[in-house]
Amino acid sequence: MSGRRTPTGLFVVFEGGDGVGKSTQVELLCANLDALGIAQLRTYEPGDSEAGRQIRRIVLDPATGDLAPRAEALLYAADKAHHVSSVVLPALAAGKVVVCDRYVDSMLAYQGAGRVLDLGDVERVARWATDDLRPHLTVLLDVHPDQALTTIADKDRLEAAGADFHERARNLFLQLAAREPEHYLVLPARESRQDLAARILERVLGLLGRRAPSDPAGRLSP
Amino acid sequence: MSGRRTPTGLFVVFEGGDGVGKSTQVELLCANLDALGIAQLRTYEPGDSEAGRQIRRIVLDPATGDLAPRAEALLYAADKAHHVSSVVLPALAAGKVVVCDRYVDSMLAYQGAGRVLDLGDVERVARWATDDLRPHLTVLLDVHPDQALTTIADKDRLEAAGADFHERARNLFLQLAAREPEHYLVLPARESRQDLAARILERVLGLLGRRAPSDPAGRLSP
Repeated sequence: MSGRRTPTGLFVVFEGGDGVGKSTQVELLCANLDALGIAQLRTYEPGDSEAGRQIRRIVLDPATGDLAPRAEALLYAADKAHHVSSVVLPALAAGKVVVCDRYVDSMLAYQGAGRVLDLGDVERVARWATDDLRPHLTVLLDVHPDQALTTIADKDRLEAAGADFHERARNLFLQLAAREPEHYLVLPARESRQDLAARILERVLGLLGRRAPSDPAGRLSP
Repeated sequence: MSGRRTPTGLFVVFEGGDGVGKSTQVELLCANLDALGIAQLRTYEPGDSEAGRQIRRIVLDPATGDLAPRAEALLYAADKAHHVSSVVLPALAAGKVVVCDRYVDSMLAYQGAGRVLDLGDVERVARWATDDLRPHLTVLLDVHPDQALTTIADKDRLEAAGADFHERARNLFLQLAAREPEHYLVLPARESRQDLAARILERVLGLLGRRAPSDPAGRLSP
């Protein structure tokens, strides 16, 4: 029940608003680790399991209508519980670097700070769902919400929630990082993706006790 | 956040194992109230909402495979959160008698006592999901699990979980009733349905400050 008790692997999470380039950096980190012969698993929340895909459909489908805020938070928590148990922990136990696009911080930012729920309540639910498994490193790609959203063409329910919502979420991400700076790498998302990828790889390799190569990949593979 | 704070209606819940006759008694109670001109809403958990139907499908469908125990509990909690918010509370606010087939006790019995989770944790999640809304009356139809299950033809995931599981669930139902006897009516489910219906109606009318009629319906309407 204690945090950071993963046996052998390394748990790296990417957080930040929509459209800040998380998936690009997740892909680059995995490619760089792969090139170095380091076993990794690329995954995401919510939805990267069979049950998770069904849960994600309920939450994000506009046809669901108004979901009670506690129901939405509990659905995200259910997804996390299943994902941690069936995807993350087995990969960590196998010694892999697990690179996850969104985790508990996103739930706190979007269900706790952004909506009407008590943040402490949401955190208790999220910690219970994940059995308090915490990332060794969370990379926060920070950018002003207005700038991030312009890169997204189609908006789903969350993205349609308005600028105030995204501003509160951003502030919460930053507050969480400030609470445990040793486990966060906060980066300005508007830096070049090559620079970002290099800084992220360096930090991850440091945690693995390895030195960064002189020329890490900063481009997406074709 | 306090229990039993419903403004005007009456919240009546039926609990007990599968196959004990809950749905029959729910139907008889609603028919009897209706005959007396008392507005009521018949409902059930899990699943009696659009989001709830989708959640129920995830939990009960054998194709979902092994769901992490915390994920299953959180899905039930999500269903409750949405059901209470969108179905139960509006009906209570309208002054109706809400008659609900299964509620929090079922979650405690099947996710808390029956499986591997800590009962206190499950109760905290369930109470948060429902904003601690508690029934004015819970009717517990009690019967030995072996006898109840023989009346059920097709078994879904829960029903296939074995005799030990149902024995633990039954014990938990009885313990919850013993904890707050003033809010429970524990009845032997093998009594005639007419006798059960009469005793339940009498208790509900007592809570409504009305006297039972001399000849309540004990049969299902055609």
